[in-house]
Order: sequence, then structure tokens, then C-alpha cells
Amino acid sequence: MSAIPQEFVRKTAQLSEDVTQPFPSSRKVYVTGSRPDLRVPMREVRLTPTETNARPEENPPVLIYDTSGPYTDPDARIDLLSGLPAVREQWIEERGDTELLDGPTSAFGRQRQHDPALAHLRFEHLRTPRRAKPGCNLTQMHYARKGIITPEMEYVAIRESMRLEELRADPRYAKLLRQHPGQDFASGMPETITPEFVRDEVARGRAIIPANINHPELEPMIIGRNFRVKINTNIGNSALTSSIEEEVEKMVWSARWGGDTLMDLSTGKNIHETREWILRNAPMPIGTVPIYQALEKVEGKPEELTWELMRDTLIEQAEQGVDYFTIHAGVLLRYVPLTADRLTGIVSRGGSILAKWCLAHHQENFLYTHFAEICEIMKAYDVAFSLGDGLRPGSLADANDRAQFAELETLGELTKLAWEHDVQVMIEGPGHVPMQMIQENVTKELADCHEAPFYTLGPLITDIAPAYDHITSGIGAANIGWYGTAMLCYVTPKEHLGLPDKQDVRDGIVTYKIAAHAADLAKGLPGAQIRDNALSKARFEFRWEDQFNLSLDPDRAREYHDQTMPHASHKVAHFCSMCGPHFCSMKITQDVRDYADAHRIGDVDAAVEEGMKEKAREFREKGAAIYKEV
Amino acid sequence: MSAIPQEFVRKTAQLSEDVTQPFPSSRKVYVTGSRPDLRVPMREVRLTPTETNARPEENPPVLIYDTSGPYTDPDARIDLLSGLPAVREQWIEERGDTELLDGPTSAFGRQRQHDPALAHLRFEHLRTPRRAKPGCNLTQMHYARKGIITPEMEYVAIRESMRLEELRADPRYAKLLRQHPGQDFASGMPETITPEFVRDEVARGRAIIPANINHPELEPMIIGRNFRVKINTNIGNSALTSSIEEEVEKMVWSARWGGDTLMDLSTGKNIHETREWILRNAPMPIGTVPIYQALEKVEGKPEELTWELMRDTLIEQAEQGVDYFTIHAGVLLRYVPLTADRLTGIVSRGGSILAKWCLAHHQENFLYTHFAEICEIMKAYDVAFSLGDGLRPGSLADANDRAQFAELETLGELTKLAWEHDVQVMIEGPGHVPMQMIQENVTKELADCHEAPFYTLGPLITDIAPAYDHITSGIGAANIGWYGTAMLCYVTPKEHLGLPDKQDVRDGIVTYKIAAHAADLAKGLPGAQIRDNALSKARFEFRWEDQFNLSLDPDRAREYHDQTMPHASHKVAHFCSMCGPHFCSMKITQDVRDYADAHRIGDVDAAVEEGMKEKAREFREKGAAIYKEV
Repeated sequence: MSAIPQEFVRKTAQLSEDVTQPFPSSRKVYVTGSRPDLRVPMREVRLTPTETNARPEENPPVLIYDTSGPYTDPDARIDLLSGLPAVREQWIEERGDTELLDGPTSAFGRQRQHDPALAHLRFEHLRTPRRAKPGCNLTQMHYARKGIITPEMEYVAIRESMRLEELRADPRYAKLLRQHPGQDFASGMPETITPEFVRDEVARGRAIIPANINHPELEPMIIGRNFRVKINTNIGNSALTSSIEEEVEKMVWSARWGGDTLMDLSTGKNIHETREWILRNAPMPIGTVPIYQALEKVEGKPEELTWELMRDTLIEQAEQGVDYFTIHAGVLLRYVPLTADRLTGIVSRGGSILAKWCLAHHQENFLYTHFAEICEIMKAYDVAFSLGDGLRPGSLADANDRAQFAELETLGELTKLAWEHDVQVMIEGPGHVPMQMIQENVTKELADCHEAPFYTLGPLITDIAPAYDHITSGIGAANIGWYGTAMLCYVTPKEHLGLPDKQDVRDGIVTYKIAAHAADLAKGLPGAQIRDNALSKARFEFRWEDQFNLSLDPDRAREYHDQTMPHASHKVAHFCSMCGPHFCSMKITQDVRDYADAHRIGDVDAAVEEGMKEKAREFREKGAAIYKEV
Repeated sequence: MSAIPQEFVRKTAQLSEDVTQPFPSSRKVYVTGSRPDLRVPMREVRLTPTETNARPEENPPVLIYDTSGPYTDPDARIDLLSGLPAVREQWIEERGDTELLDGPTSAFGRQRQHDPALAHLRFEHLRTPRRAKPGCNLTQMHYARKGIITPEMEYVAIRESMRLEELRADPRYAKLLRQHPGQDFASGMPETITPEFVRDEVARGRAIIPANINHPELEPMIIGRNFRVKINTNIGNSALTSSIEEEVEKMVWSARWGGDTLMDLSTGKNIHETREWILRNAPMPIGTVPIYQALEKVEGKPEELTWELMRDTLIEQAEQGVDYFTIHAGVLLRYVPLTADRLTGIVSRGGSILAKWCLAHHQENFLYTHFAEICEIMKAYDVAFSLGDGLRPGSLADANDRAQFAELETLGELTKLAWEHDVQVMIEGPGHVPMQMIQENVTKELADCHEAPFYTLGPLITDIAPAYDHITSGIGAANIGWYGTAMLCYVTPKEHLGLPDKQDVRDGIVTYKIAAHAADLAKGLPGAQIRDNALSKARFEFRWEDQFNLSLDPDRAREYHDQTMPHASHKVAHFCSMCGPHFCSMKITQDVRDYADAHRIGDVDAAVEEGMKEKAREFREKGAAIYKEV
């Protein structure tokens, strides 16, 4: 019998009702790769035909990159108490480079596993942790460098491609595939994403596939500037608010709206147990900042942190399945004074913890001095580095200063070290940066960090809009994504003010999906414009339902429309509420187009005066029937 | 006794309660110019001192550009039934170039003025319209070219300067004045805005001051790329919804949140009367699209439009006081077929009306053929042109196409014509444009239209986010503003879906204030960073109330904060809800800074080992008291 109290079971059952409904007019499709257990999920949006005077014109379905996991698959059995199926388990086993452990090897992991006081909130079906066999290196980068394409690499190649080659061969998609040339700043984006291209980018360190061997539930994804720009979302209970079931709900909610990865930034009680619930139910890579938990273990006193404690925490989390760790190893003792004249000092939590530790001990940052040992741990589980920007600017005034860039240079040095161990690396970036100074961040990161993927928070392009910082940062995110940033860390409307609730998370994610997609379009990512074209065509043809269903947030689009025109009949009406029934520019334009088509208006300059009068007469006759009452 | 029904009076009284409360911790200040009746309003935000161990450090007040008009002045008597005081009347009279008319000279204006059926909704205190005396030209551009600085020019010079010269001389502002160099694309922005600079920019056509002589209630403002980026908001009842009092309320609401100009896009009944109510109570320039009303007069049938009808409409609106007219004179017959292959054809309402008229008659656009006569009307009242982009793209697919750019070239030709009459001109721009194609729009507009100010809608940088198009377009707006656009037309979350309500208007305005301010920062507008610096300093020092009061939307910032930490004591607490009381990066950073200050940590590399140990000991001792319970 489950040790989980009925109250908890009831709550988790409730949340799955809330988040598992499929998107409207959508179905989950799977593209199978070279082996039957390699099934890549996508969302297919079915569209209605275009009404014409002749027979209706088909509008082919549109595929959407799908981060929502099994939760939106009506055929999947969702049971948060058991966790998601381990889709990668067989792949990991087959490689023969791992061993199953007897249980957690970290002291803290063992303690939590056996503490009877935690039974009421402990995840029931704990997985037996795996680790690399002695002498084995099992990272995706290691395999890539050996020239081996893993199932994970093939998976992300299929996932990124979104059947583009098939669409190109299908005449129904010819118009939808029209796309403007991008400006990709010479990143070398290919026309087609192949598994071999994925392997090559991972081998060169230009992309990472965060995929801990202890997170077999993961649907693999890739982070690199020659792929779709990704977004990260954050959750985390704090000392003041929120509970395990709220955090799990936020994780599933985040997946639903399009979060590609998720960081668990919990700082309160029961961090270990919350993380287990999240990982076992997470289809996306999970990142953490292990120093937050280490700090909890010393009751919030940075000066009492030790390498031994940190080491145990890294192993604890790696064996749970965390896919990437933010490690603030670039906050060096000699950089801390560079922040003293700043307007807003050190605003990164991790950065300030380590700065304080450095000052308290007058020793170099222990994450820097133990970096090789950290790499040894990371590679035993394939945890990727997210090298933290502990000295990022917390205000426009401090943007691109010496402290920030000194740390970035050190992160470049550490990137080289990590790559000696074949450990995957991405680099975190700012913060608060005015628009004209954003590009310098990308250019410098690519140069100093050897093209390792850049992962930035925003940046916020002004400081004056608390309560709207999803927008101030979304503007910066779209720009920095265009310039070459691989992943954007979302910001919610509550940034700087409080903890986000579910609606804030949704607002933050959709804003960042906009930024990421805008960046894809601007870079010229092949196929990126299909969804825009399909939605615009639906809009122009008054296919309201198709317009809603193709949008990033179909529910809200429909809700806003219904506030003005609540009747179902309006959704097929050939007018919209902005103009009213007698006056709609799109309707008028359709007439213009019909006319131009019918009369080859392109030849008008050559037409004789008489012919023009004739055309005018015809048009007026046709025009008499233009305004139909609905 | 008033003919206005009591119900209407009651409603207007209600709305003034809603919108006249001053912003928190703010007071209205007036900077007086060279004459006592030239008083430029600004909002001054008072800040609390910084607590230090020594005596408190003063934080000097921050001035904010104030669009809210007399509504936020507790000393002003607001009476929507009487309208605002005519602050410009004396200036206009003194110039001696106008004559008072007997009444409206348009047929429609006369008809509406004498229709007894309209008494219940007609504005009571109609102004006697003015017109230029025969042979006189009274436009701001005309005076500027004659070398005369009008009170309007001096007013906007003071308004744009925001006392910057005084702040530069005041040592309390030294830190707040720190600002990053901008990238202004060689626009020639000066360090100081003088009345002479304003005059010169207006004379060169690089900036406009929309200021109809029949809108003496106006607080003058300037639109040009060497000044603050401005935002326009739209209101307008449609056939389906909304009433006069709602529209007036939206106008005041728009002024409150920062709308610099306002377009009345009404298309329903009582357009004339609604406009009168708005104008008499509007402190900002009002723009319209006169063809919308002309179309109403022919019951929505574009082919029945005539020049005579349009002419009467222009005069009707000019005599009411409309400050700028959108005129779609660039939609030429030969350009219409260029739109036939578009994904979304012609989406501008004005553009589609004129395209249809051109096709129906097979004649050239009557606004183009009568352009000189339009100029004669415009200059008799100093109405500025907003040359409409009737062929703007309605989807990414159609961005920067031949139709759009052909029209832009014609607008450049018309700009020259208007300038021959000394009529002020700005140029409207798109629309829907992916990020990498935005800058071309600005470059081409400046070249083709001889640096006339650019005024753009967004642009939206993706089509896939209906219900979030304030954000998709806000991203484009920030970028296009940076590149040199002078005014940004706001978009609300309801764009493409329905009519905005008050909260949508607020969301749209604040988003566009963010975009405009971000553009100012990126261009390097002198003084633009003061507010960011002051807010960031307040944030860093946990002066929560100051942070709220300096923000674009103090109410929402406070509300969001209170959702997590509702108690008043939290607003002076040295922690925030993201981290909890034991763990706050800003608190830790303050310790780092205190430490660095006290110990000249910059010398650390030179310090001997013993000294470092000593410092470490001291720090630990000090650190013991760091975490205070609140």
C-alpha cells in the first residue's frame, strides 16, 4: 500500500485533469526512427478547408514542435505517482557502459531515502541509480567525438527536422514553405538537420543534449545555435510559499505551454523529495543550481560551505537524474572587487554565495579549484555544465562591465577543461543590457567560450517596468536569440516582485516562445515560417478556429475573441469585431484579389481606355453583392 | 441648463474619479518658459533616503515626462462637460494669422451642429472654429522655416529636456546621470535640446509638432527621431460596441499611462460628436483617418466615395481640431495588382477602401490626384499629414514586398509636395516584419521620404501569437524605434481578435512605453537612463516603495508584490519573496560591498598571506550578524 497520503494522491489526480487535455484540433503523432522504440512526438494541428466558389481547397495539417510530453496524448496513461515511462532505458542499457548501483552513493541521498519522517512525501517508485562503469565515459559528447550517433542524437535530428524533407516533397505545402532569407551571422545552419549533423555539432561543443543516464524518462532535445532556439522555465518552492504538488503541477504546466527545459530552483524544505517527484514525471531536461541545496545544508551560511558538502550534493542530484548543473566556477576571488563600484553589485544568488565564501576564506572559489573533480562526477552520469554567470549585471548601469566579462573569459577557460573530459557545456549570460549592447555579449561569448551554446536570462532592456519584466526581457531575448543565443531563460511578470503563479508561468512561457520563434525566423531556420504562413492564411480567410488552433495559446485567443463576439456563428463570420459587419479590410481585399485574378489586372497599364471602363462597370455590378449580413 | 442628460453627466463624473488620482508619491510640477503662460508639466517622483550606518543619504527626486494632462493635477478643476483650458489660445491669437469663423464651414459640420436629434449627446461648449486668414500660412513648419521660434517650439524644447541641464549641474544627480553610449545611426542627436534645435528640426521636416489651431487645449509635443520616441494609442467605437463616454474615458486613461498622441478610429454612429468630446478634453494631439468617416457617409460603399465628400470631411474634422490626418494617398491604381499574390492581400482598412475605389472607377486614387488641394486645407488649420501605408504587409510573408515599397516611394514624392506648402508630414509604416528585415524599412523610409518622421505599427515579428500581439509587436517596436522610428503605434492584446477594454489599453500602452524607452536608451538619448538608474538603486537598497513609484505601472508592481508579501512590514524588509528571509543575493552583495569598501579589497593581490587570514577572520566575525530576522 502506498505511503503517500490520500490527500496528496487526490491533489495529484486533480492536477493531471487540469493539464492532460489535448490542444484543440490537435493530435499527437509519433515519427519513428531507425528502431521501433525511437518514437519522436509531434503535435499535428488539423485545419479546415478554404471555402471557395469552386470546390473547397484543402489546408494540410501543420506540425508543431511538441514539448508537452505524454500529458497531451489521450492514449497515454498518466500516473504521477508512478512517473513517466523510461523511454531511454533500453538505449542506455545497450551501450553497456553503466552499472546499476545498490542505492544512492551520496551521504545525503542515503539519509533522505531512509528517513521515516519523509515517508509521507517521498516518491514511491524510486529508481535504482546508474553510474558509468569504471574507466567508461558515457557522455553524448564522448560518443559524438568517437563518431557514434546515439539514439538520442537521432531523436533530436528527427525532432528538429519536423518532417521538413517530406513537406518539401509535398505540393500542398509549397506556399506554406515560402520563407524570407535569414541573417544567421555565419553560424552555418544547414538546410536539413541530419543525425550526422547533430553528432558533429555535439562533437564540436557547439550544441549539447542534456540527458542524464538517471533520467530515462527524458524526451531528448538539443541546445545549440544551429537548432531551434529553446526556452527554459524555472520553478522552485521557497521558504515562504508553495508545496511539492504545486511544483509538479507547474512542471507539467510548463511542458504544456512550451518549456524546453526546466530548472528546479527550490530553496526551501524537502528540496530532495520535490526534485524526485519532478524528475520522475518530467519529459524535459531538468537543471538545478546545486549550491542552493548545499547552502540549505549549512543553514544558509555561505562561509560554512565546503567542497566535500558540494561534492556530496552533486552526486546526490546526479543520481536522481538532474540533466544539467549551474556551476558558478567563474566567480574568482580577484573578480569580486570589480563589482564594488557597481550600481547593483552581485545579483546572482549563486554568484553572491560564492563571492561571500571567497571573501570569508580568502581562498579561491572551491568550484574553480575543484573543477576537474566536478568534471569527473558530471561525466559519470552525463550531467551537462551550465557555467553560471555569477557576476551578471543586475541593472542596465552594470551591463558589459569588467566584472561580467572577466568571468566570461574564465568560463571560456573552464569550457576547454570540461571538454577535455568530454563533458557537455553551455554558458550562462545576462541579465540587464540595453539593446545596443546585446550583440557584444553574443560575439564575446562565442569567441571566448569557443562557440559553446549561450544560455541567457532575458536580457531585460530597461529597468523601469517591474510587473512587465516578461516583456522587457522578452524583447532582449528575441534579439539575443537572433544574434546566436541557443536557449533563453524565461522571466515572468512577477520577476523582482514575487513568486509566479500558474498564470504568470503561462505568460512568461508564451512570451518566450514568441522571442524564440522570432529569433528562429530572423536567423532563417528552415521551415520556421510554416506556422506563421498557415495562421496568416487562416486569418485572411476568416477561418477563426484554425487561427486559434495554430496560435501559441489557443485558449486565450479564443477567450479574447469571445469577449467581443461570443456567439459561435461569429467564428465563421466573414467579419471581425474591429470593423463590424459592414466594413472589413480583409473582406474588401478578397474582392480585390478575386477581381485581379479574374481580370488579369497586371496588364492594366496596357489596357485601352474602353476596356478599363468595361472593367469598372463589371466590378460595380459584382460589388453590389459584397456586403452580406451574417 | 445643459441639454446633456443627467445619466451622461453622472457617468462622466464617475470616470473622472477613476482617472484623476495623482500617481503615488508624485506631484505635478511646471517649468515656466520665456512667458508666464508657457508652463510645461512634468511629474516629479519623490524618493525616500537610503538608510546607512551613518546619516541617511538623500535620493533626489526623479522627473518623468508627463503625458497625463491636467487630470493628475490635484489643483486642476476637471470638468469633462466644459473641456480643458485652452492653454494655446493666446499664442494662436497673438500670431494674428487666423480669423474666427461664424461656425463650421463644412456642410456636414453645420448639419450636425443644428440637428436637434443630437442634442442629448452633443458637446455643449462648442468652440468657434478658426482658419488661416487668406494668404496666411500658419503651420509650425512655416514659422520654423521663417526662423521663428513659436511658443509651441519652446514648449517642446523644455518638455524634451526635462531639466537636464539643471540636473547636470546638481552633484546629487552625478551617479544617476551615468549612461552607456548609444548607437543612433548618425541621426545627429544633440546633448541638449534647445528651442533653436527644435525649430531647425521642424524646418528640415525631420520632426513635426502636430498642433491644430482649433485644438488650443493641446499640450504641445514633438515627433522626430532626435527626440524621445513617442507612442500613439487608438480608440474608436465600432458598429458593434462602445459609447461616447467609454471613448472619452479611454482617452483620459491613455493619457494617464503614457500615450503621447491618440487616434480616434471610430467607425460607428455619432463619430462627429464623439470626436468633439474627445478633442475638448484631450491634452494630446488627436489623429484620425478621415476616410473612415467619409465611408460612413456613403453607407460603407467605397465605390461611392467622392473627392467632394472627402473634402467636406477634411474641413469638418480640421475645424473640430484634429491634429493629424492619416491620408492614404500612396495607394495608386498601378500598385493594387502588386498585392494580388500576397498571402494576406491588403489589410489596411484605408488601403483597401482606396484600392476598391480605384478598381471600381479605374481611375487614380482621388487623394493622390487632389493632393495639392488637401495640402491647402491642411495648412489653413495646421493639420499634419500622417501619410498612410495602405499597402502595409498583413503577415510576415508579405513583408518588404514590392507593393509596400512602391507605396513608400510615392509617399516620399508626396512629402516633397506637402513641404512645398510647409505642411508637416510623418510617414506610416508596417505592420508584420520579421526581425532581420526591420532595419531596411527605416533605412528606406529615411532615404525615400527625406527623413520625415517614421510612425510605425509594431511591427509584429511573428504571426503566431494572437492574444499576445502587444508583445510580438512590442519587440518589433523596440527595434524599429532604436533604428530611428519617431513614433510607435501601440497594439493591445486584443489585436486581430476584438476590441480592447481598459485593461487591454493599459497593457498595450505600458508595453509600448517599454519599447519606446528601450529605444531611447539604445539610441543614447541624453538623460534616458536616469529613471533606470534610480529604480535599480532603489531595488538594490530594498526601497520597495520607491521601486514601485518609479516604475511604469506603480499600481501593478505593488499589487504583484503584495500577492506574495501582503504585509506593509515586508515593503521595508531587507529580503524579497523570491529568496526568503535567510537568503537574498542583494543582501549578501551589500555585505560584499561593505567589506570591499572597508578593506580596500582592490589591493588584495598585493596583500601578504597573514593579512588575508586576518581579513578572513574579521569577515567571519562581522558575518555572524548578517542574517537579521525581520
